[in-house]
Amino acid sequence: MTQQLIDGDSRGVYVIAPTPFDDAGALDLESAARMCEFYLGHGATGLTILGIMGEAPKLTPAESLEFTRTVLKTVNNRIPVIVGVSSPALNLMGSLSREVMELGAAGVMVAPMPSLKTDSAIAGYYSAVMKELGDIPVCLQDYPQTLGVHFSTELLIRIFSEHPGICMLKHEDSPGLNKLSQFRAACDTTIGRRVSVLVGNGALFLPEEMARGADGAMTGFAFPEMLVQVVNLATAGDTERAAEVFNAYLPMVRYELQPGLGLAVRKYVLAQRGAIASAALRAPGPRLTDADRAEIKILWERQNKRLAELGL
Amino acid sequence: MTQQLIDGDSRGVYVIAPTPFDDAGALDLESAARMCEFYLGHGATGLTILGIMGEAPKLTPAESLEFTRTVLKTVNNRIPVIVGVSSPALNLMGSLSREVMELGAAGVMVAPMPSLKTDSAIAGYYSAVMKELGDIPVCLQDYPQTLGVHFSTELLIRIFSEHPGICMLKHEDSPGLNKLSQFRAACDTTIGRRVSVLVGNGALFLPEEMARGADGAMTGFAFPEMLVQVVNLATAGDTERAAEVFNAYLPMVRYELQPGLGLAVRKYVLAQRGAIASAALRAPGPRLTDADRAEIKILWERQNKRLAELGL
Amino acid sequence: MTQQLIDGDSRGVYVIAPTPFDDAGALDLESAARMCEFYLGHGATGLTILGIMGEAPKLTPAESLEFTRTVLKTVNNRIPVIVGVSSPALNLMGSLSREVMELGAAGVMVAPMPSLKTDSAIAGYYSAVMKELGDIPVCLQDYPQTLGVHFSTELLIRIFSEHPGICMLKHEDSPGLNKLSQFRAACDTTIGRRVSVLVGNGALFLPEEMARGADGAMTGFAFPEMLVQVVNLATAGDTERAAEVFNAYLPMVRYELQPGLGLAVRKYVLAQRGAIASAALRAPGPRLTDADRAEIKILWERQNKRLAELGL
Amino acid sequence: MTQQLIDGDSRGVYVIAPTPFDDAGALDLESAARMCEFYLGHGATGLTILGIMGEAPKLTPAESLEFTRTVLKTVNNRIPVIVGVSSPALNLMGSLSREVMELGAAGVMVAPMPSLKTDSAIAGYYSAVMKELGDIPVCLQDYPQTLGVHFSTELLIRIFSEHPGICMLKHEDSPGLNKLSQFRAACDTTIGRRVSVLVGNGALFLPEEMARGADGAMTGFAFPEMLVQVVNLATAGDTERAAEVFNAYLPMVRYELQPGLGLAVRKYVLAQRGAIASAALRAPGPRLTDADRAEIKILWERQNKRLAELGL
Repeated sequence: MTQQLIDGDSRGVYVIAPTPFDDAGALDLESAARMCEFYLGHGATGLTILGIMGEAPKLTPAESLEFTRTVLKTVNNRIPVIVGVSSPALNLMGSLSREVMELGAAGVMVAPMPSLKTDSAIAGYYSAVMKELGDIPVCLQDYPQTLGVHFSTELLIRIFSEHPGICMLKHEDSPGLNKLSQFRAACDTTIGRRVSVLVGNGALFLPEEMARGADGAMTGFAFPEMLVQVVNLATAGDTERAAEVFNAYLPMVRYELQPGLGLAVRKYVLAQRGAIASAALRAPGPRLTDADRAEIKILWERQNKRLAELGL
Repeated sequence: MTQQLIDGDSRGVYVIAPTPFDDAGALDLESAARMCEFYLGHGATGLTILGIMGEAPKLTPAESLEFTRTVLKTVNNRIPVIVGVSSPALNLMGSLSREVMELGAAGVMVAPMPSLKTDSAIAGYYSAVMKELGDIPVCLQDYPQTLGVHFSTELLIRIFSEHPGICMLKHEDSPGLNKLSQFRAACDTTIGRRVSVLVGNGALFLPEEMARGADGAMTGFAFPEMLVQVVNLATAGDTERAAEVFNAYLPMVRYELQPGLGLAVRKYVLAQRGAIASAALRAPGPRLTDADRAEIKILWERQNKRLAELGL
Repeated sequence: MTQQLIDGDSRGVYVIAPTPFDDAGALDLESAARMCEFYLGHGATGLTILGIMGEAPKLTPAESLEFTRTVLKTVNNRIPVIVGVSSPALNLMGSLSREVMELGAAGVMVAPMPSLKTDSAIAGYYSAVMKELGDIPVCLQDYPQTLGVHFSTELLIRIFSEHPGICMLKHEDSPGLNKLSQFRAACDTTIGRRVSVLVGNGALFLPEEMARGADGAMTGFAFPEMLVQVVNLATAGDTERAAEVFNAYLPMVRYELQPGLGLAVRKYVLAQRGAIASAALRAPGPRLTDADRAEIKILWERQNKRLAELGL
Repeated sequence: MTQQLIDGDSRGVYVIAPTPFDDAGALDLESAARMCEFYLGHGATGLTILGIMGEAPKLTPAESLEFTRTVLKTVNNRIPVIVGVSSPALNLMGSLSREVMELGAAGVMVAPMPSLKTDSAIAGYYSAVMKELGDIPVCLQDYPQTLGVHFSTELLIRIFSEHPGICMLKHEDSPGLNKLSQFRAACDTTIGRRVSVLVGNGALFLPEEMARGADGAMTGFAFPEMLVQVVNLATAGDTERAAEVFNAYLPMVRYELQPGLGLAVRKYVLAQRGAIASAALRAPGPRLTDADRAEIKILWERQNKRLAELGL
């Protein structure tokens, strides 16, 4: 199959994939391949790897490439794969980006450096990034809660107007619903082109965000089938059914969104579901207690019960 | 009735009450009285006023006293009322505390100053506070997401061991479930006395927190009857029913927890329910859009539908 | 004498004045009056009260007014007095501003609320402030290190272009020299009017800032005569002599700039010099150790020695 | 010569060395070698590489090793060389540490991860680090202004008591003078062993810190001869001469300490002095303006004039 590239019309569910390690902290490439099949089997329309929840800063560049190679080979262009390439050094970002595109990636994702403090500084940074990346398709990550960098709607419009190569927005500001409405409206007017808007933040506001004009989700959740169903139902106009499905999973969504602990929850469930071999994070990282695991079991049982009530 | 005081055995639902203003931003004391009856009518076992969500920093000391006087007069010792007295100046905290206790408050709540950075500094601060407050019963607020001050379990144990006058913990760290388990265990061992632990954070983890040993909730939500039912059911041991009730409200809980916007949502719903006359916050503050209000309407309808299914 | 008002041509040294307390933490109005004469006697061309270093958040509104009244009565229009009016509530800012202008203030200073995160939000805030303040002359404080709010040059130009009532910039960004050059250039072009630019930050870059186009200083230092001499020498074109004088005081400037501790140093020296009766800060606040006081003594002796060498 | 290791008796001036790049951003190993000779020629008693000011996060692990190899080969055990090994992943920290010790490093420096928020979390982190590093000598970096992690004296005592392998403290808290006095006193009592305390923060308080018990400096400055002279004079008891020398350089120290811009100043002066070929930082990074360079020239001339007056 031919290499898929992201563009302003990309839509659906790009699952944020974790990076699997074995219990000793070594890259587990066998699990990486298995995890890709797991996501494909649950209807993912894309994958995003080496993001913040992919423990990217804990990998060497060599490990990042090795993992990317395994994922791309496994996926084999069945769905597009976006690679996170954020780096404190522009030349390292550039070389990594060119390498992953060469390997078959669909585009790259760039978060702003945490030291950026004003609209001018942020806009200037993306100008430098785009000069480095040339015509590689870029997804901009707007995630102030973790990165401490804040984009007003006005600033997003400015950056997307200046750089047609930035074709996708990973929207995860909070609160972010009115910003999403405003940005979507601006695509038709000031920006003058379609931009793909995928929402993150653990999908906590996915039904509302679809109604506000999102094209889908780019986030992680140990039950990616929920993301797929909600996006599909919302796209088909069945907002009430979308909400019912979403609400059935919401107690777990909330549990998996606990700051700092969430990735441990997600990997634990993925391991339980057989998607990866070990729930381990590379140290230092959080660990679940017995009480946590017991809570997850209870939440999962209630979720299954509610899904059964809904005929799912 | 006689003045009620909080102590280590306090339990139930202390609703965090907003401060009502009219559309021009003036204190609305008539609404303050009506709001108290609304909370009493929905089963509140206590009230907490002049907290962060009470817009306390936007009030003059005179307004704070006036509002407190109205609330205490309305409540008339039917339930205990805690007053937030956090202040950058210890002497102002002291004089306000003595005044509200004189008026009939059940205790005061003290958040740490945002400038405190180490265990030693935080412990030292509470020593100075307790020296200033004497034998007034104190609730310590542990709310790092907003205040930027972090208490380890170890530090909580130290402070509660040193100061018997601090009889209540408003627990709203996130993630906080294991911390709550550890702190509760320490009450029986190291601390050696009962401490009332009420949970905040918009009740986002109320069922789990009750299972971990909380005595109830101290938080705001436009549907306080949910807090009351969940705490009562959990206390009675009916954890599954508690979860069902909680889950019915969870989409709204989540919506009302949007950082910075949540209080506008809460006041809007309270005004719709007739608890207060105006949804206005004192400027500068967030405002809801038409789209926000439409979303609240939809969430409310779905909530009612789900409650009906549950026979509530 | 008639009430003096600040405008775009204001220049010289506006000393940031502390608020004197007695050892028990009560307002010391007698010292307030004495301190004003001290500053006048050392050549201050203006005063600024109730700023961050004036412990303003530790005062009640009544105390703020009482202190302002004493200062304005003492100064009696010999020099202009600016009053800090920053507040989380716009209506309280407005009423305080109108009261101090009525009492004879020359203008008010407004710092941005720490919660403001983007250019749009900051610009919107100053629009709301100026609507509230009407035609009261305003000094905008740009102090990101303490407030966490960052103004790009671009944003300053936008705000000053939109609001002619903001006639003065208290510049204390760091690094800030190129920003100062750019802003000064923009006054002649984009903004199209003179803006008074006074520099803060403890005067740590005063010689360079005067060369970059500052009109003087608005900062605190226990030796205000240095500020006056350096500004006067620089204005007269004697940059080398200005640097010599500045360098003689620089070890003490640096010592007084210690974050969190600096105000205690400043008040200690002011008390030693007889400007105020007590070095006390209102609790909670830092305290000097014996070792600190001994260091100040040594620095002061070396400063005197160097000044003597310079014939000062 | 044999490999030198740091221990609790280490003293003198460990210069924080930048990482030289060519104008295109490639590692410049020839300059790396020349820079080492420059520092040796100016009396450095040690070097520290790959710290925050060494642009370490902008290097790949391969580049870090290559640079380290060049430095260690050039220095050839004439003086000890400490290597910064801070990393988000403990296993990467471990492997890098073992490699650089194998190459001849004298020890490693470990800064806390910025996400650590409480005494318990910080102490736990250093326990995990020391388990990973075994018997490699470690310098702990206490630098809250940049890292956002705060160590109380109490916490430092706890960590140094638990881990004899941590033999050196890079002290750069601010304000930090009383903390330094307290920590030094604790070495003789609670900790019960000598700890080498070297001060950072651009040497802004070097004379006072030497008087408070520091063993020297570990910081960068484009004129390392100042650091060497001040430490030597202070160690010899000539505190007044030490202060005179320090004060002569203080205007430049201050200029080089501008947050975010300082490294560009330092590299510019080092390039002017012939220590490195290019003043370039790896992008993205700050750049000096013509006005900045003109200011440096003036400050340098004044510095030379003052040094001549002092017979230096």
